Amino acid sequence: MADVALKDRLRDHPTLGFADWVLRGIGQVVFQNNPISGAVILAAIFYNSWIYGTVCLLGTIISTLTALWLKADRGMIKDGLYGFNGALIPIALVAYTSQNFTTGNMPNVHLWIYIVLCAAFTSVMVPAFGALLGPHKVPGLTMPFVLTTWFFLGALLQFTTIDVSTALKPTSPSDFTGPRPDYTLDTWNFGIFNGIAEIFFQDNWISGIIILIGIAINTRIGAVMALMGSALAVAVGVFYGAHDEAIRDGLFGYNAALTAMALGGLFYVLNLPGFIYTVIGVLVTTRVWASLGIFLEPSGMPVLTSAFVFVTWLMLLAKNGFPALIPVAPADATTPEENLKRFGGGQKA
Amino acid sequence: MADVALKDRLRDHPTLGFADWVLRGIGQVVFQNNPISGAVILAAIFYNSWIYGTVCLLGTIISTLTALWLKADRGMIKDGLYGFNGALIPIALVAYTSQNFTTGNMPNVHLWIYIVLCAAFTSVMVPAFGALLGPHKVPGLTMPFVLTTWFFLGALLQFTTIDVSTALKPTSPSDFTGPRPDYTLDTWNFGIFNGIAEIFFQDNWISGIIILIGIAINTRIGAVMALMGSALAVAVGVFYGAHDEAIRDGLFGYNAALTAMALGGLFYVLNLPGFIYTVIGVLVTTRVWASLGIFLEPSGMPVLTSAFVFVTWLMLLAKNGFPALIPVAPADATTPEENLKRFGGGQKA
Amino acid sequence: MADVALKDRLRDHPTLGFADWVLRGIGQVVFQNNPISGAVILAAIFYNSWIYGTVCLLGTIISTLTALWLKADRGMIKDGLYGFNGALIPIALVAYTSQNFTTGNMPNVHLWIYIVLCAAFTSVMVPAFGALLGPHKVPGLTMPFVLTTWFFLGALLQFTTIDVSTALKPTSPSDFTGPRPDYTLDTWNFGIFNGIAEIFFQDNWISGIIILIGIAINTRIGAVMALMGSALAVAVGVFYGAHDEAIRDGLFGYNAALTAMALGGLFYVLNLPGFIYTVIGVLVTTRVWASLGIFLEPSGMPVLTSAFVFVTWLMLLAKNGFPALIPVAPADATTPEENLKRFGGGQKA
Repeated sequence: MADVALKDRLRDHPTLGFADWVLRGIGQVVFQNNPISGAVILAAIFYNSWIYGTVCLLGTIISTLTALWLKADRGMIKDGLYGFNGALIPIALVAYTSQNFTTGNMPNVHLWIYIVLCAAFTSVMVPAFGALLGPHKVPGLTMPFVLTTWFFLGALLQFTTIDVSTALKPTSPSDFTGPRPDYTLDTWNFGIFNGIAEIFFQDNWISGIIILIGIAINTRIGAVMALMGSALAVAVGVFYGAHDEAIRDGLFGYNAALTAMALGGLFYVLNLPGFIYTVIGVLVTTRVWASLGIFLEPSGMPVLTSAFVFVTWLMLLAKNGFPALIPVAPADATTPEENLKRFGGGQKA
Repeated sequence: MADVALKDRLRDHPTLGFADWVLRGIGQVVFQNNPISGAVILAAIFYNSWIYGTVCLLGTIISTLTALWLKADRGMIKDGLYGFNGALIPIALVAYTSQNFTTGNMPNVHLWIYIVLCAAFTSVMVPAFGALLGPHKVPGLTMPFVLTTWFFLGALLQFTTIDVSTALKPTSPSDFTGPRPDYTLDTWNFGIFNGIAEIFFQDNWISGIIILIGIAINTRIGAVMALMGSALAVAVGVFYGAHDEAIRDGLFGYNAALTAMALGGLFYVLNLPGFIYTVIGVLVTTRVWASLGIFLEPSGMPVLTSAFVFVTWLMLLAKNGFPALIPVAPADATTPEENLKRFGGGQKA
Repeated sequence: MADVALKDRLRDHPTLGFADWVLRGIGQVVFQNNPISGAVILAAIFYNSWIYGTVCLLGTIISTLTALWLKADRGMIKDGLYGFNGALIPIALVAYTSQNFTTGNMPNVHLWIYIVLCAAFTSVMVPAFGALLGPHKVPGLTMPFVLTTWFFLGALLQFTTIDVSTALKPTSPSDFTGPRPDYTLDTWNFGIFNGIAEIFFQDNWISGIIILIGIAINTRIGAVMALMGSALAVAVGVFYGAHDEAIRDGLFGYNAALTAMALGGLFYVLNLPGFIYTVIGVLVTTRVWASLGIFLEPSGMPVLTSAFVFVTWLMLLAKNGFPALIPVAPADATTPEENLKRFGGGQKA
């Protein structure tokens, strides 16, 4: 287990430990409790935009420091569980206030101060959702990030010192009719890999591939699941005739990829019913993303990862109803591989 | 108890049992764990539209099969508790995608596949809400149906292969002012019986009467409550001056009828405080239906039975606060008559 | 403790007790279980508008009577915990149906009947949220008021007999751009004290000062917290450049003042981490108020005290995650002063 040893070597280091926890925080956005995965993912973001890379790193540091200050559980902090929401929120705030969504504009002073409070507040949300969902052995997932972003992004519309981008334009939903778009191979290629990259708001398919590599360092099955989730989402979009641009930009895939990773082997053992259950979850997540977009359109707010969170919560809450599935408690869920080894592919006794 | 024997004769039958469970599933939409009630209600739907009857039957079958595949609790499946959400969802999806709301248009292939996934997903939601509400001894009601419909109906606006009807047109809410409409006796007649029929999306007052008969086969008090709920809702609409058409179409009544059945004798014993509590619940439900309509108008989404669900949940969650009421746990709630027999009309010790 | 004796002298009085409970109910809107505080606050409302004063008193009476009828816990009724939601709801309904928001118009018969049902229903909500949040030792706060108002206010748009005011006009959210407004000393003065008064929907800074006195009679720290919360909210509005009018009207402050009182000494002991945690809560509440306004704008519905409720719930649910904070269970939370005396400013063992 040299690999495991390597990834855990700095976790308890007196001075370098903090860097380890922060990198794990970035990895935990895609469920990887592994600083090397986190470092590769951070590199994937920097590859697309040094601005996004910088704010992502700072956000993770701030939320981790907040947890330390409030004396939160040391084990959770070390596992990056107080970092991953803070990793996402500054990227979201910068993306939706930048004229250039793809690489982002540097925040002004007002936005910097705003980001610090946001990232700190996500750390307050982590144990709040832990209290609500802990008794059900269901993790809070990225809900602290989603809720904090909705709380803070909407507010920006009421302030003159920070302007939001046109990506937040409120509209009245209208039905997409007319001929089915002409999809090309690019729809699939860009759609699938942007679907991975969009988890971190990156419009860059190469970043998507690097993120996949980061995941694969820690779990091959997880990487396959992410890929499958994003690909299935593209397939749904193509089959039902969604906007070509939305598919290509990876908007259909990023929630689906997260659901696939969560249900496919991590919080359920990947036996056959577990696999079919995951496929159902991915197909549903694709619709929920599309539907929440309609619900939110009049206010202009983005869906973020809420579709993934709602579907995964519901499908994890259901676990005691279905003995065909083998759930894994969040505290025991490491990688699909280890879950398979420990709990086997068979039925529960 | 020949009547009871008759209704339960097929429940454990090796081959015909499944048909029994499916019919109970249809009956459970209005809380009737009785295959004969279910069969009469199915007939009421077929009387109005063979399309709605067919999709209702198929949806119930799919959601019941999903529960069997996932090895869900056999007793719950046999009682139709994995069927009733699946009974409603295909009717909703067909109704809001048909040019003719009243009888529905036959779904295309894309919608058929869509319906299968939807109906299957409601079965996942049942134990999810069971996990959340079970500790409070509060049933999930039709929330799986409501949430799944919102999740899937909104998404249809983003796909070219399935178009939605004008009934989902998003608008900006405006205050209904001007002279009070001239209501006629028809407002009352149509309003009350369409209010029953609208539980199943049927614009047909005769279907409403047949459904009432289906309920009365299993419980007289339940049928009276449904009638009272719908009638009180019409009275509220007339007293406060609502749109005549909305009242006539039964839109005011269907949530109120369900609340009346749930609170009036089923999940609370029908003593005097229980009766007044039920009346309050019905009056509140009428407002909540009207209010949620305003909240949802900008997105164009329908209220469905969400008003009933929210009000009934709140009024059941409150039970431990009010010793004047005698709550009945969902597992023990059969019919108002049996509840009265077992728990009496008196106070708890 | 002559002061304590005085405030509790009538609590168990056979005939005057009821008046005591009602006044406590008004005081409990701002967490003061003290009839003298309640009386002073009621005077503050009457000072601005005898109509608002009258409906506030009647609403508190109705919701308290409803709880008595349903045999709710006597101790909770005596502490005014079944009154405070009923105190607020008639003011809200009158305010949003009056041409003159500041002093309100006298309700017509239809609205009077409406108010009675509303106030009664808030009492049903109290134990419902108690059941949901009680196990977490988190209070329901003014959620019964918020939810009931949303339920009933939206419905008014569908009825001709009661018209709503232009304050409920649905609009499409737009970003506030352009030069930062020229704030004056009045922005601060009016903003801070209207922020207190707006808790009770009063556009009157003198009422705000009288309410502060009412709070200070029971707890000096609580009054300071309310003032700090409102002042910090004004500071946020000024710093980020919000609409001058919104700040002046106290709209930024009323949720923030409530959060400050709840977190600052009442449900957490006011040690140093507790104080910083409170400041974070206040800053977040200000954003959440602004954000929820954007989310609700398409439906035209008001934010009410929902920002305070959501933020305070989350920050109380998080308590077990942060040993740096000393939480006080709702049943034990009397005043910040007594909490400090009992639990000290130090760390938990």
